[in-house]
Amino acid sequence: MADERGEDLTQMIVDNDLTGIRLWLAEHPPYEIADELERMDARYMIVPFRLLDKDRELEVFEELDPVHQQEILLGLRDSAFHELLEEMDPDDRARLIGEAPAKIATRALAGLSQAERRMTAALLGYPEESVGRYMTPETVVLHRDLTVGRALEVVRAKGADAETVYILPVVDDGRRLAGIVQLSDLVVSDDDSLVKDIVDVFVPRVRATEPAEGAARLMQEANLVALPVVDSEERFVGLLTFDDALELIEAADSEDIARQSAASPVAGHYVSVTVPRLARARVVWLLLLIVASTLTVTVLTHFEATLEQVTALALFIPMLTGTGGNVGSQSATAIVRALAVGEVRVRDLPGVAWKECRVGLMLGCVLALIALTVGLLVVPGGVAVAVAISIIAICTWAAVIGSTMPLLARRIGVDPAVVSAPLVTTLVDATGLLIYFSVARMVLGI
Amino acid sequence: MADERGEDLTQMIVDNDLTGIRLWLAEHPPYEIADELERMDARYMIVPFRLLDKDRELEVFEELDPVHQQEILLGLRDSAFHELLEEMDPDDRARLIGEAPAKIATRALAGLSQAERRMTAALLGYPEESVGRYMTPETVVLHRDLTVGRALEVVRAKGADAETVYILPVVDDGRRLAGIVQLSDLVVSDDDSLVKDIVDVFVPRVRATEPAEGAARLMQEANLVALPVVDSEERFVGLLTFDDALELIEAADSEDIARQSAASPVAGHYVSVTVPRLARARVVWLLLLIVASTLTVTVLTHFEATLEQVTALALFIPMLTGTGGNVGSQSATAIVRALAVGEVRVRDLPGVAWKECRVGLMLGCVLALIALTVGLLVVPGGVAVAVAISIIAICTWAAVIGSTMPLLARRIGVDPAVVSAPLVTTLVDATGLLIYFSVARMVLGI
Repeated sequence: MADERGEDLTQMIVDNDLTGIRLWLAEHPPYEIADELERMDARYMIVPFRLLDKDRELEVFEELDPVHQQEILLGLRDSAFHELLEEMDPDDRARLIGEAPAKIATRALAGLSQAERRMTAALLGYPEESVGRYMTPETVVLHRDLTVGRALEVVRAKGADAETVYILPVVDDGRRLAGIVQLSDLVVSDDDSLVKDIVDVFVPRVRATEPAEGAARLMQEANLVALPVVDSEERFVGLLTFDDALELIEAADSEDIARQSAASPVAGHYVSVTVPRLARARVVWLLLLIVASTLTVTVLTHFEATLEQVTALALFIPMLTGTGGNVGSQSATAIVRALAVGEVRVRDLPGVAWKECRVGLMLGCVLALIALTVGLLVVPGGVAVAVAISIIAICTWAAVIGSTMPLLARRIGVDPAVVSAPLVTTLVDATGLLIYFSVARMVLGI
Repeated sequence: MADERGEDLTQMIVDNDLTGIRLWLAEHPPYEIADELERMDARYMIVPFRLLDKDRELEVFEELDPVHQQEILLGLRDSAFHELLEEMDPDDRARLIGEAPAKIATRALAGLSQAERRMTAALLGYPEESVGRYMTPETVVLHRDLTVGRALEVVRAKGADAETVYILPVVDDGRRLAGIVQLSDLVVSDDDSLVKDIVDVFVPRVRATEPAEGAARLMQEANLVALPVVDSEERFVGLLTFDDALELIEAADSEDIARQSAASPVAGHYVSVTVPRLARARVVWLLLLIVASTLTVTVLTHFEATLEQVTALALFIPMLTGTGGNVGSQSATAIVRALAVGEVRVRDLPGVAWKECRVGLMLGCVLALIALTVGLLVVPGGVAVAVAISIIAICTWAAVIGSTMPLLARRIGVDPAVVSAPLVTTLVDATGLLIYFSVARMVLGI
């Protein structure tokens, strides 16, 4: 249903059917409109966007990712451009400006009111991908000596300008964070009781300079709608809200998934990303991997005489490298994920390696049976036995390599997700061949 | 720091140092305690758990995953067992009972008060993985004719028992969902205004029988702290809250990531999962894949004469199958993710295939240059040319196969994540060899 309407929208733009577009826009919520715009050819996007009501315009705009936001901005006249930016949430605006080309960024900053410009500049002062870039400074701060009744009055007076009032940071005289109260706690408490008596001082807090992904996962663990953010002197500076946390987790998972297949993550919507950008995101690792795979050529050249003597050995090369790669990928993927969600730490390395070693051995024994059966059907018995023994050794080895590499990467400060399945596969290919031909020479006595 | 303390905790249990354990527990928030318990040997878990205060006991318990919850329950006496279950959130309890062995489930249901048992039975009536299993029925429901002042009184009176009061469902006389009001809207509105004048009727809603993952992603898109859930007659039945949504998204991503490496997702914490369970989660696909990879043996047997004539062709088999597999994995991974986050739909198939075809061709041309260079260094020119041409063809083919298979899977109602990178790799291996030897025979004229 939604699909068909989406088709219609582009068609209506081509037909210049303004009434139809207005009707379509009125019938859809902002996030669906944003999704449809992102799927569209860039030159069409601006038409329905201009037809939106002023207040929905902002909602739709904030749902777009920065790449598409830039395209929209380029299509707007100065007044509309500045109005839109002025009204954006400061954290969304900072991320947009931080990622935009200098031309758009300068034009954007120049048009802002002084208050908004100061707020944006402060957020842009934090490192990319840090909590500071994602937090909102627009919150309702309570002093710990307030009564609950007075605190509720403050929320009523200032709440409309804040991004969230569900988590209310509580500060002492030096604006140092004492803890938080939840709005629900205020509502169910007695008006005369004091904020300092209901403040949750054990709430986790993060520094604005810490990585945003970790903060988002902490929010999930601690079940918080918003996480207070402090500076190096424990002073409150902002809140990381759940919607940004959800977005951070989804983006981090997308990145990990892309890396698992040895591709860089691509910003923007798959449907509207160009072919050269997709190819660029993938080519670097492929080049590294094909260069690494020349190792397999070297190993095989080394055993070329053996191959000429027993050509049948070549028949099992893809099966052996494939199986080793699969087992190694499984181990690597499991450990990368366990690291990402915090189940495994670097100090677990010996335990993980030993566990995966046993898993690999078990898997190898099962798979060797299949390989032996297939082998006995098509090649001489000696080759079949060599294949079966090699499978056991390769699976064990692949599981150990696949599981320890991500941990070693984390140890030396590299993103473990960089240890992708293809990287493990390529390394296991070369070492697997070495194992295979060594075993074969022993078994066949050549 | 936390790491070292974790080590200490197990040590303190072994030493029976109860004071030390109590101190450690007092110093850590529930989610960190739960994490530490999940990493521990099952027979130790119960010791620190029993030393927790009554109210923190519940908080820690709810942070554990169902596998560990069951282990704790087995270690508790009847009174403690029933008290804990009685106090759990109904949705958490329903999931625990739904996954537990019959023995625990019966004991659990038998001990519940009638009200809680009825609530749990209702949730268990919904299909597994549906919204109904994850929503909370404990909410504060407002009638649309209330005034804001009266609504706030209702929140104050009933709020303490509800899981969330940030999103308040608004219903009409037949308990049909009219929309929601946010608690913040109530707080900033005039006491005399009416709920029906501030209700958000455009809020998205889901049926209790719909898949939970989709509902969680909808919450993220719509930036909602909680999503109202209705039955088939549009009557309000519960709220899906943001913490469950975060958990659902993380679990769904973990599952997709595991499947991408051809493993089934493993419930529970990596550190405490046993070797046989890990092996079981991985072996099924490995068996299928090794059987599929006998296709490569068949293809090579078919070309055995060619191989005997030109052994040099064997040297490039791993490089070619590896590169084809890598390109195919990238495409498959990109499309599986794009499907998961809703960027691509089945009807996009022709566009996706054409786009990936061009990406594969571009990548193939670049990689062929490297292969040609390496080839000219170690083998006769004819073989090197055959390798280079094959790389271009294989990369293009792999990208098309890798991208269309997940879409076809979705089309026939299979989880696209089942089209894992290893599956694509194995299929591309066999077809890639066919391409390689056909090209070689043509180029070498044999």
